[in-house]
Amino acid sequence: MQNFTLLIHCSDQKGIVAAVTNFIVQVEGNIIYLDQNVVIEQNVFFMRLECDLSNSKHTVASVREEFSSTIATQFNMSWEFYNQGTKPRMAIFVSKYTHCLFDILGRHSSGELNVEIPVIISNHDDLRPIAEQFNIPFYHVPFSKDNKIEGEKKQIELLAQYEINFIVLARYMQIITPKLISIYENKIINIHHSFLPAFPGAKPYHSAFKRGVKIIGATSHYVTEELDEGPIIEQDISRVSHVNSVEDFIMKGKDLERTVLARAINLHAERKILTYCNKTVVFH
Amino acid sequence: MQNFTLLIHCSDQKGIVAAVTNFIVQVEGNIIYLDQNVVIEQNVFFMRLECDLSNSKHTVASVREEFSSTIATQFNMSWEFYNQGTKPRMAIFVSKYTHCLFDILGRHSSGELNVEIPVIISNHDDLRPIAEQFNIPFYHVPFSKDNKIEGEKKQIELLAQYEINFIVLARYMQIITPKLISIYENKIINIHHSFLPAFPGAKPYHSAFKRGVKIIGATSHYVTEELDEGPIIEQDISRVSHVNSVEDFIMKGKDLERTVLARAINLHAERKILTYCNKTVVFH
Amino acid sequence: MQNFTLLIHCSDQKGIVAAVTNFIVQVEGNIIYLDQNVVIEQNVFFMRLECDLSNSKHTVASVREEFSSTIATQFNMSWEFYNQGTKPRMAIFVSKYTHCLFDILGRHSSGELNVEIPVIISNHDDLRPIAEQFNIPFYHVPFSKDNKIEGEKKQIELLAQYEINFIVLARYMQIITPKLISIYENKIINIHHSFLPAFPGAKPYHSAFKRGVKIIGATSHYVTEELDEGPIIEQDISRVSHVNSVEDFIMKGKDLERTVLARAINLHAERKILTYCNKTVVFH
Amino acid sequence: MQNFTLLIHCSDQKGIVAAVTNFIVQVEGNIIYLDQNVVIEQNVFFMRLECDLSNSKHTVASVREEFSSTIATQFNMSWEFYNQGTKPRMAIFVSKYTHCLFDILGRHSSGELNVEIPVIISNHDDLRPIAEQFNIPFYHVPFSKDNKIEGEKKQIELLAQYEINFIVLARYMQIITPKLISIYENKIINIHHSFLPAFPGAKPYHSAFKRGVKIIGATSHYVTEELDEGPIIEQDISRVSHVNSVEDFIMKGKDLERTVLARAINLHAERKILTYCNKTVVFH
Repeated sequence: MQNFTLLIHCSDQKGIVAAVTNFIVQVEGNIIYLDQNVVIEQNVFFMRLECDLSNSKHTVASVREEFSSTIATQFNMSWEFYNQGTKPRMAIFVSKYTHCLFDILGRHSSGELNVEIPVIISNHDDLRPIAEQFNIPFYHVPFSKDNKIEGEKKQIELLAQYEINFIVLARYMQIITPKLISIYENKIINIHHSFLPAFPGAKPYHSAFKRGVKIIGATSHYVTEELDEGPIIEQDISRVSHVNSVEDFIMKGKDLERTVLARAINLHAERKILTYCNKTVVFH
Repeated sequence: MQNFTLLIHCSDQKGIVAAVTNFIVQVEGNIIYLDQNVVIEQNVFFMRLECDLSNSKHTVASVREEFSSTIATQFNMSWEFYNQGTKPRMAIFVSKYTHCLFDILGRHSSGELNVEIPVIISNHDDLRPIAEQFNIPFYHVPFSKDNKIEGEKKQIELLAQYEINFIVLARYMQIITPKLISIYENKIINIHHSFLPAFPGAKPYHSAFKRGVKIIGATSHYVTEELDEGPIIEQDISRVSHVNSVEDFIMKGKDLERTVLARAINLHAERKILTYCNKTVVFH
Repeated sequence: MQNFTLLIHCSDQKGIVAAVTNFIVQVEGNIIYLDQNVVIEQNVFFMRLECDLSNSKHTVASVREEFSSTIATQFNMSWEFYNQGTKPRMAIFVSKYTHCLFDILGRHSSGELNVEIPVIISNHDDLRPIAEQFNIPFYHVPFSKDNKIEGEKKQIELLAQYEINFIVLARYMQIITPKLISIYENKIINIHHSFLPAFPGAKPYHSAFKRGVKIIGATSHYVTEELDEGPIIEQDISRVSHVNSVEDFIMKGKDLERTVLARAINLHAERKILTYCNKTVVFH
Repeated sequence: MQNFTLLIHCSDQKGIVAAVTNFIVQVEGNIIYLDQNVVIEQNVFFMRLECDLSNSKHTVASVREEFSSTIATQFNMSWEFYNQGTKPRMAIFVSKYTHCLFDILGRHSSGELNVEIPVIISNHDDLRPIAEQFNIPFYHVPFSKDNKIEGEKKQIELLAQYEINFIVLARYMQIITPKLISIYENKIINIHHSFLPAFPGAKPYHSAFKRGVKIIGATSHYVTEELDEGPIIEQDISRVSHVNSVEDFIMKGKDLERTVLARAINLHAERKILTYCNKTVVFH
């Protein structure tokens, strides 16, 4: 495969699209996907482009270099360039909840997630049997007030050792440390069990039940230092009624959580997400 | 028609359902709908019952009286008893937004709302032509800091004059006064243009846009003294994406607002709603 | 636990609800759920009732016997009576698709499915490793034109041996034989990968793509002799657009299939479904 | 306003995007929207582009001419070119149903439909008062077996007289004649009251009720000679349950019909739809 994905983000200027597409012509590529968007109020330009080089004498690596030194510089772009032949490597962080973990591992086994999963890290040892069931290395890295620095150090070491590109928090019940967030900026995906910004923080289903909402939700977002305030990737909802107890909310919510998290993982893995101003641009 | 609807709400006790259904047998009624629900944690019992008296020698009025003096007293019930032959009389309050007003009047003309609409009241004179277009009396009752008491007095007089049973705020941009709320407790339906409890108060679409949500919503609820905190009747949502501007949010939101409000009106008109603990029980 | 669930289905008659609820009073039960519905055109009466006997000197078994010989006979009812303490035993039939199987087994491991899963039966040997991963007996029962009778015989033996109450076809790619259907009438749940009655039969995603629909769906239903014509239990849908290929339809569809099938399993396991006239009544 | 919308559709070739965007640079335009899609199996290329000429010395008309004689010819494109300053003129065809008509006229009055509505045509005289209520010319053009040719002739005359660009069938209960379809190819929008391809033809709610579906739908599509087989523009769905009668289906369906039809009108009016192979490409 000689396909690549290019994500661009810069201030809007005349002639950007022409410049990029001329560049593709020059390197003998064939555009198989191009979506471009301008947020006029903020004069921001976004583009996602997929290109096939199978009839070109250029390689993905050489095109990348060429792009970097010409167009990218000229228009002062933020850009990301991915070889579609390389699967991103994803670490899973879990605590004690099993539903998202089973879902991710089941989907991965079924070939529905376009990622490698080299490692699972947990602050508890409880879910080790599930990791073993799916033959994935599992590390118990306890994380408490007393050993916070040690725990973070161990996490970062493991992530480096397994060459992890992004992290999924599959209902991981710990705050991520600022240092880890800064290393994996917009690369840590959380699933929050409410329709954010409604019910941030702990026990959202209990709060939703108490408020008497008719719809509950789940939200996947990138982790930032502000709890439950990071860029939203995907949300979905489910109807509830007065016949549902808090336990029903939790059970229905699990379905939302796993589905929304899986969608976020795939969007990230397929490089369909750009972030700016604490928001995401999600290309289809 | 000799049908009635009975709504019951009391502390849960053994034998309630048997007592009520035996009562229906006694009065020669035929149960055509019965839904009953217990919230175990709070030991609360709810029931909605529809009964046909067409083969009975009792009348709706006599059954009501009998029920009141026997079962209702015995079980210390909160209850409501409605003759299905009588349409509730609904007042519409509007300001300047036209979309919900057109929708309500169009549906009413099409026979989709089981209510009478004897009067429209507004703090502006702008929408008078729409009222005239649909031949409904329109009153301009200005409402400012200076004439608040006078305005409220005028509103209450009009509501009494037109024998109004409940009020719909069709994007009415004024706070309802506590006195009016107390007269029409759980009988004033508002439509809020967000997925409550997210984005209460002013400009929710702008806040939703800023937060970068992927789903927007609308919420109909009964008006209480706490702004946007009353019992939720119905909610619905619509997907948005990065290509949508605030204006798109507003436009998509209008569709939610009119649909959710219309559903709430019908649920209320068909006596399918009970309220307790600032929540609604919505029977299907 | 001394709770039971009662499902009733008979022609509508005056006094049924009173008779049933009086019976519950007699046996000192406490009604914790009652939903009742009449289809007037067909004069059919449905009821679902949950009852708590914890403060009664009667047992579930004795109440059942008493009910059978009195009310049930008197009103000529079709009825089902379940001890809530006994989990139904579910067999899974699979072929080669893994996504529904992983989903069911993951949910079961997470405590989300209120069933026992004593056995998995397949016409291929491919998914044996998954069964082993979850420690569930797996039987390869090939099923071709030549050994149809033998295959059916083996299936029926296994179902008897494992005391199976109902069967789930987790994308099982074989026609169920009439004999097996007659043994498990309204007890075999299939998931069809379209929004029935649109696109019955083979390759529905390809047909949906060709037709250019904007929404795809999945349908769980009880298996009857008419292919994809049995009583529908649950359906759900997902939006698609022109950017989606058939492969995208299939991928999105997998999410629908597993969710809709899991909901159907739980509805069946919790005895929330009645069937009549090739339709289901699904209590909430 | 000097904005235009360009829709392109041709066989996929290297360098198309570059050629088009270079052209925009040449005419000093600023691309404010560009979405491009390739259906690889069929080697088809689609593009939608919005361009702002406010800082250009070219006019929309001159750019159009230039485009026609250069790029469009060179790549053998099917293309449409619209001045955003000109609202399309829409005729409404109705019979006796009022809900879609009220909805369209209410939305139009509220400024939610970006069209002119110069005329309403009906095969019955019943809805004339609604047209009068909204001050829109109404023509009663009866349409029966005997006067088919005469009726069609009158319709075509009126459409010409009012310079109609596209037609909306707001639950118009007549077959459109082949001649009219050929004049307004992909310019007649119908709303069908089912989730196509399920339940084409007459009485779809009755069929849906009989089949026991759990979800009903509505479908807007362009009219072709094959009944209910034209390119689908938009669909939406609503949940139903065993408590709902056919009348409930019809009532819930009305909500779907008006919403789905309004979306289709806006997508068409904003030139967001391309058609090919009896399917639509709907740009967002």
